[in-house]
Amino acid sequence: MIKLQLPIKLQNKKKSRIHKKLGKAPGTITYMGERDNSISTLDVIAYSDDSLEEYSPVNVNTLLEDKRDQIKWINLVGLSDEGYIEQLGKVFQLNSLVLEDAVQTEQRPKIDEYETYIFGVFKMLYLDEGQNVVSEHVAITLFKNEVLVFQELTKDVFDGVRQRLRGHQGRIRGKGADYLFFALLDAIIDNYFMILENISERMEVLEEEVYQKPKPKTAHKIQELKKEVLRIRRYISPVRELVGRLIDTEHPLITKDTKLYLRDVMDHCVEINETLQIYREMAMSLMEMYMSNVSNKMNEVMKVLTVMASIFIPLTFIVGIYGMNFDNMPELHMQNGYFIVLGVMFTILVLMLVYFKRKHWI
Amino acid sequence: MIKLQLPIKLQNKKKSRIHKKLGKAPGTITYMGERDNSISTLDVIAYSDDSLEEYSPVNVNTLLEDKRDQIKWINLVGLSDEGYIEQLGKVFQLNSLVLEDAVQTEQRPKIDEYETYIFGVFKMLYLDEGQNVVSEHVAITLFKNEVLVFQELTKDVFDGVRQRLRGHQGRIRGKGADYLFFALLDAIIDNYFMILENISERMEVLEEEVYQKPKPKTAHKIQELKKEVLRIRRYISPVRELVGRLIDTEHPLITKDTKLYLRDVMDHCVEINETLQIYREMAMSLMEMYMSNVSNKMNEVMKVLTVMASIFIPLTFIVGIYGMNFDNMPELHMQNGYFIVLGVMFTILVLMLVYFKRKHWI
Amino acid sequence: MIKLQLPIKLQNKKKSRIHKKLGKAPGTITYMGERDNSISTLDVIAYSDDSLEEYSPVNVNTLLEDKRDQIKWINLVGLSDEGYIEQLGKVFQLNSLVLEDAVQTEQRPKIDEYETYIFGVFKMLYLDEGQNVVSEHVAITLFKNEVLVFQELTKDVFDGVRQRLRGHQGRIRGKGADYLFFALLDAIIDNYFMILENISERMEVLEEEVYQKPKPKTAHKIQELKKEVLRIRRYISPVRELVGRLIDTEHPLITKDTKLYLRDVMDHCVEINETLQIYREMAMSLMEMYMSNVSNKMNEVMKVLTVMASIFIPLTFIVGIYGMNFDNMPELHMQNGYFIVLGVMFTILVLMLVYFKRKHWI
Amino acid sequence: MIKLQLPIKLQNKKKSRIHKKLGKAPGTITYMGERDNSISTLDVIAYSDDSLEEYSPVNVNTLLEDKRDQIKWINLVGLSDEGYIEQLGKVFQLNSLVLEDAVQTEQRPKIDEYETYIFGVFKMLYLDEGQNVVSEHVAITLFKNEVLVFQELTKDVFDGVRQRLRGHQGRIRGKGADYLFFALLDAIIDNYFMILENISERMEVLEEEVYQKPKPKTAHKIQELKKEVLRIRRYISPVRELVGRLIDTEHPLITKDTKLYLRDVMDHCVEINETLQIYREMAMSLMEMYMSNVSNKMNEVMKVLTVMASIFIPLTFIVGIYGMNFDNMPELHMQNGYFIVLGVMFTILVLMLVYFKRKHWI
Amino acid sequence: MIKLQLPIKLQNKKKSRIHKKLGKAPGTITYMGERDNSISTLDVIAYSDDSLEEYSPVNVNTLLEDKRDQIKWINLVGLSDEGYIEQLGKVFQLNSLVLEDAVQTEQRPKIDEYETYIFGVFKMLYLDEGQNVVSEHVAITLFKNEVLVFQELTKDVFDGVRQRLRGHQGRIRGKGADYLFFALLDAIIDNYFMILENISERMEVLEEEVYQKPKPKTAHKIQELKKEVLRIRRYISPVRELVGRLIDTEHPLITKDTKLYLRDVMDHCVEINETLQIYREMAMSLMEMYMSNVSNKMNEVMKVLTVMASIFIPLTFIVGIYGMNFDNMPELHMQNGYFIVLGVMFTILVLMLVYFKRKHWI
Repeated sequence: MIKLQLPIKLQNKKKSRIHKKLGKAPGTITYMGERDNSISTLDVIAYSDDSLEEYSPVNVNTLLEDKRDQIKWINLVGLSDEGYIEQLGKVFQLNSLVLEDAVQTEQRPKIDEYETYIFGVFKMLYLDEGQNVVSEHVAITLFKNEVLVFQELTKDVFDGVRQRLRGHQGRIRGKGADYLFFALLDAIIDNYFMILENISERMEVLEEEVYQKPKPKTAHKIQELKKEVLRIRRYISPVRELVGRLIDTEHPLITKDTKLYLRDVMDHCVEINETLQIYREMAMSLMEMYMSNVSNKMNEVMKVLTVMASIFIPLTFIVGIYGMNFDNMPELHMQNGYFIVLGVMFTILVLMLVYFKRKHWI
Repeated sequence: MIKLQLPIKLQNKKKSRIHKKLGKAPGTITYMGERDNSISTLDVIAYSDDSLEEYSPVNVNTLLEDKRDQIKWINLVGLSDEGYIEQLGKVFQLNSLVLEDAVQTEQRPKIDEYETYIFGVFKMLYLDEGQNVVSEHVAITLFKNEVLVFQELTKDVFDGVRQRLRGHQGRIRGKGADYLFFALLDAIIDNYFMILENISERMEVLEEEVYQKPKPKTAHKIQELKKEVLRIRRYISPVRELVGRLIDTEHPLITKDTKLYLRDVMDHCVEINETLQIYREMAMSLMEMYMSNVSNKMNEVMKVLTVMASIFIPLTFIVGIYGMNFDNMPELHMQNGYFIVLGVMFTILVLMLVYFKRKHWI
Repeated sequence: MIKLQLPIKLQNKKKSRIHKKLGKAPGTITYMGERDNSISTLDVIAYSDDSLEEYSPVNVNTLLEDKRDQIKWINLVGLSDEGYIEQLGKVFQLNSLVLEDAVQTEQRPKIDEYETYIFGVFKMLYLDEGQNVVSEHVAITLFKNEVLVFQELTKDVFDGVRQRLRGHQGRIRGKGADYLFFALLDAIIDNYFMILENISERMEVLEEEVYQKPKPKTAHKIQELKKEVLRIRRYISPVRELVGRLIDTEHPLITKDTKLYLRDVMDHCVEINETLQIYREMAMSLMEMYMSNVSNKMNEVMKVLTVMASIFIPLTFIVGIYGMNFDNMPELHMQNGYFIVLGVMFTILVLMLVYFKRKHWI
Repeated sequence: MIKLQLPIKLQNKKKSRIHKKLGKAPGTITYMGERDNSISTLDVIAYSDDSLEEYSPVNVNTLLEDKRDQIKWINLVGLSDEGYIEQLGKVFQLNSLVLEDAVQTEQRPKIDEYETYIFGVFKMLYLDEGQNVVSEHVAITLFKNEVLVFQELTKDVFDGVRQRLRGHQGRIRGKGADYLFFALLDAIIDNYFMILENISERMEVLEEEVYQKPKPKTAHKIQELKKEVLRIRRYISPVRELVGRLIDTEHPLITKDTKLYLRDVMDHCVEINETLQIYREMAMSLMEMYMSNVSNKMNEVMKVLTVMASIFIPLTFIVGIYGMNFDNMPELHMQNGYFIVLGVMFTILVLMLVYFKRKHWI
Repeated sequence: MIKLQLPIKLQNKKKSRIHKKLGKAPGTITYMGERDNSISTLDVIAYSDDSLEEYSPVNVNTLLEDKRDQIKWINLVGLSDEGYIEQLGKVFQLNSLVLEDAVQTEQRPKIDEYETYIFGVFKMLYLDEGQNVVSEHVAITLFKNEVLVFQELTKDVFDGVRQRLRGHQGRIRGKGADYLFFALLDAIIDNYFMILENISERMEVLEEEVYQKPKPKTAHKIQELKKEVLRIRRYISPVRELVGRLIDTEHPLITKDTKLYLRDVMDHCVEINETLQIYREMAMSLMEMYMSNVSNKMNEVMKVLTVMASIFIPLTFIVGIYGMNFDNMPELHMQNGYFIVLGVMFTILVLMLVYFKRKHWI
């Protein structure tokens, strides 16, 4: 599980990628994630309309032997054991480029059609405990009667599909491998709505903050949100086109019936893309609002200063006059001079206040 | 009737959607709106050039039985009774994906062509009592001789079409089901102009406000308007492409004659999209104007401060000088010292005023 | 003649349109302009290479009878008499949608091809006496040997074409109806350059204003100009594509020879669109310049304030010191104390001035 | 030679164009430049691989008579003699639309293919003595064995081509008329790099100015540069597409071999367009930098004011206290009162300075 | 090796290019880089699945003679010896346009297909010792059994490919010349990730700087970074399309197998382009953040000024009052007058502080 890094840090990742890969031949299988000790585990769900078995095969070579008219969902979790994956690739006669992409966690979403199989790389997006968006690399390969899934981690979004298979819910048990492929893809895309929801909530909080009491940190948060939208869009935007190509393909593995369902997935992709686009525009609007608020704040500050200074500077000048020590200042010796000056100053004060009131500065 | 939420709140909606749907099989019929107790009601208008009947069938199974060369407009209001809708789906042999979309009020506009029918989802936009824009989900299915409409609420924009049917106005009674389909679509799109008008009025008010007396709240209002334009565009922009596809389709249900009318609907869509685009640019201009006004205001405030301070600070300095208590200050003992100083200060004042006048600061 | 309203007001117009039209069947002929009492007048210019007649037919039914191998330009001015127009439509066997668009002054530019005729709606743009841009709706229908023009008002841009017809100038008399159609379209488009020129002059004035003495009103004017460019673009931009489609059409009414001329019209459309695009960018630059000027002004104001305050506030502090009434202040009793303090203050003043001079603030 | 006017002035030009042309038939030959007395001069270079002649024919009618298997470059300088040009047009059987475009100096770049010739209009761009960018209209017509060039002025960029012809350099003498056409076009495009270089130098100077000492005028200059980039792009951007069309054409006059060379010209066009695009973005960045500098300046000014005022206003208040004339002010009568107050004020001053130092304001 | 100049300086380069080239015939071989004395060196790696030889041929004419079923990688370093290159061109029967592009270091990336070979120009990007991005021109020509590489400098990114050839790693030894072509292209593109990483690191530093302590120079640095992203994009963005064309080509030199690998290269190009696009948006966000920080700083400064002035100006006015010298000022003679005034002023001070505290200004 890779925390959704800033592109900056994404690039730091890429450094290690470059260091690992630079000079190696294309097609070399190199796991790019954070190596951990967890061993790869392989689970199989084999099902037909009237039967379902789940088992963990010990020997990968036997995987394709027991042909019993069942659809098999072969799920590999953990991509760090490169030897094991190479062995798997041999059993399924996968191109070495495919294996490379299957374990290369930095690979952007893609769907490649080969003669006997279709290979896709996607990104699952989660929220971790700290409500941060994290991404997980997942590769799905569709064969005639098998679907082979490569996952980085056990945490996945496929539980719903498993439940439907086990509970014989919906159409899934009566359909072919391509329908399973669709169901897995659909589960991934459906989960993106969770992320959108999270972003939407954070945007709502930020909107509140901008309108109520913007702080210098608010601008920072808005930019962070915008950056996150950019990043998520990067994961999702290619999927739309890829699914579109799958709908138009003439590859025999995708039945016309499944294309109907894929059209639904594409609708969701379009909707997610549009929503992200709107979020981006909203983040830009928020930044505008923030800047306009900062300016308004400044205006308010300036008005207070100007009102205070404009009222008291002239008055201070007047009292300064009568603080002068000239021998001959007739006003000083008038009986009511002091009170007259006080009166004059009070009048000036009132006039000033009226003036500023009219200008709506106070 | 769903109040047109901020995308933010839209997403809050989606949460419940996700919670309701996550893990369910695609094609599951789940009503997504706010459940209310109102029962679904079904109304039928059956008409031909020389006859028209209106009735509410008790049994949905009899709907297709009485074939009398009439075009039937079957209108269902209320989407919360999922069992009833499923029954209806069976009668009309609708794909379960279609039924899912028919009741899923969050579905974005779409038109899907099936072998024997064409299914479209659209958004009606209204103004509620508080002049807020609210949207209502509506799904229209075109068969050879029937048009089946799924509506959330009784409030609709189809009354004009009903009047024309009953009053035998225009061409509608003499034409086929596809013309009825067009007429309903046309009624929906025509109503969008009401919304544009409402936005235009609010923009006019805002423009007045920006030019006359912008307040910090004005910026907020401009951003709200911009957001609303974004949202409405989201409902309308797909329709243009959808209608375009309908014009180019070779589906036998759409006659060449009706395509001529659909071209008109598409013209309206183009016009609405263009107008929304212009509104968006105008909202951006308004925001620019607002910011420029805030800056101008600040300038005005600063000028007042500068003029006041620049005039009185030097004068205060001068009176300060003659307030000093040095033993030996010859000016203090001059007979006219005080009056000379007053004269000098008055001259400085006049010169300052002339200077600021020249700079157009006062 | 409709004054080119702000889109806002355009929408107010549309309200009445909606009120007039809502619920009416498509194809209903409803004049949308400001109804006036003027009766519709019909003028015909019938010409061939060696003859030209001008007359005003009393009976529209005879219009098509006198076939004498002449090209006929039938020009209708005034669109408020819906009955008359319907009658005309019957004579020329026009589709009711065509008649609807012919009188609907809000219709955006369009060209529709029918089997026996081609129908186009365009906008003439004028300057009225007050140099405001006003638009006039004009619809041109091309038949095999006739061109039928629907105009709102007598003021038009077709006089040049009439002169050429009467004076047998250029090729026009020897060519077919499609050349006349082109000539009318060309006259409309050529007139747009007048509008561009007007905008360009106003932009020049505004540029002068921004660079010389920007006022708060200047920003308003720039935004108004930008809005006007947006609006004009809306009238012109569809024409380019429409003419392009006419050039590519295989409709028998447009000869290959005329397409050569239409290519010229399209070149003009492209040029107008490009110029408008440049005007838009220039308006945005002007706004930027305006904002930068406002900031510079503010800077200048602030500098004056800062210089004045920075010089006199410390000096005032010094004179304040010697205005204190302590019993024991030795400086006060020095013979030259006063003059020494004056000297010190003068030195501070000079140093300050040098400092600010160096900073280029004065 | 037309000085590259602001679009504004360009439009002023267009006024006269409209006044000259309005009402005239399309295809009328009207020279749009500034009429001068210079007579048109016609020069011919006739060459084959082993011969080259240069002469100025007296009679245009004999131009096409002396067929001696030579390629002829017929160069007309001066477009004000419309009769002469019409005569030329007859000799070469040119369409009147072509002649119109040949002399219409406002015509934007275009390439039109006719059955027996290809006609192109381009813009030469020069720097005049004052380093201003000026444009010259040039029209090139390619026939089977002739290239006919219409130029406004004698100053041209074709000297290099002449040298190569005379010196038998490169391939040009052994190739056909289409290669000459390419060579002329290549010379025009190559010269655009001079203009790019000029803009780049001015941008460098402006960049220096913005970073070192921005003045209010700097913003003006940046906007001027941006406008100029916009204008030049307008001349160049259509050329790319036009050359592209020439490469794809199946017109027999363009040989496959020449298309290879045209691909090179197109590469240059793409490069120029990209460079202009980058210049535009750089001008926008410069404007941003300018604005950020203005803000920084303002900040600096404000800091000086704030530091001065914050230090001396409280001190002035303190000295004000002891300038009061109350009968009973014990501090005034303390032996060291004055010195204590001076000490306190000095302490305050030091604390203030430390505070502002910490805030990095001084 | 050319240091990646600002486009400005790039254009200065182009000046010399123009001066060198202007008037020369197209196809003239002119080296555009900084001429150095280094002689061109030619190295050959000839390999098959079971053999590999490396040698430096003395005579270029013998290059193609020793045909032994080997793939030959002929690598030329140093492009200043034009005679040598022309000789090489003759041996390989290269078009003179190809040779021109091979040595013209300003040429933007291109791929041209000729009948018997495919010629491509690319840019290697490096970091020099000072961490500046420098670019090197490289031209690769693919023949049936040879790959001819033109390099400016010895420093290259092809070492990894050489290692794989020598070590018989991966598939490279068993594949054809087109696979070598791909491997070289792949090495160039892979190296771009290093540059991205460098930009990403600098952006991270800048982000830190903007958020922590923005200086006027920071804006400058952001703009520089943005400009660099623009420039790099210019080198990389054409490559994507070029590789795309190579994948779609039907040229016999590119095998179907190699196209699979080229698809991978194209994926990388897409990724690089997207990353650059994100960097550009991030640079714009950084600039926005910088401006918002400058405004916030200004706000903070203004608040300090306003608080200080608003508190002490009124107090100074009060002490000024009692510094007046009127004969009749009763307060002056009150026993506790002084202390009462001090108390009043203290109260005002406290109220002011509370007021500003509430406004969150202090």
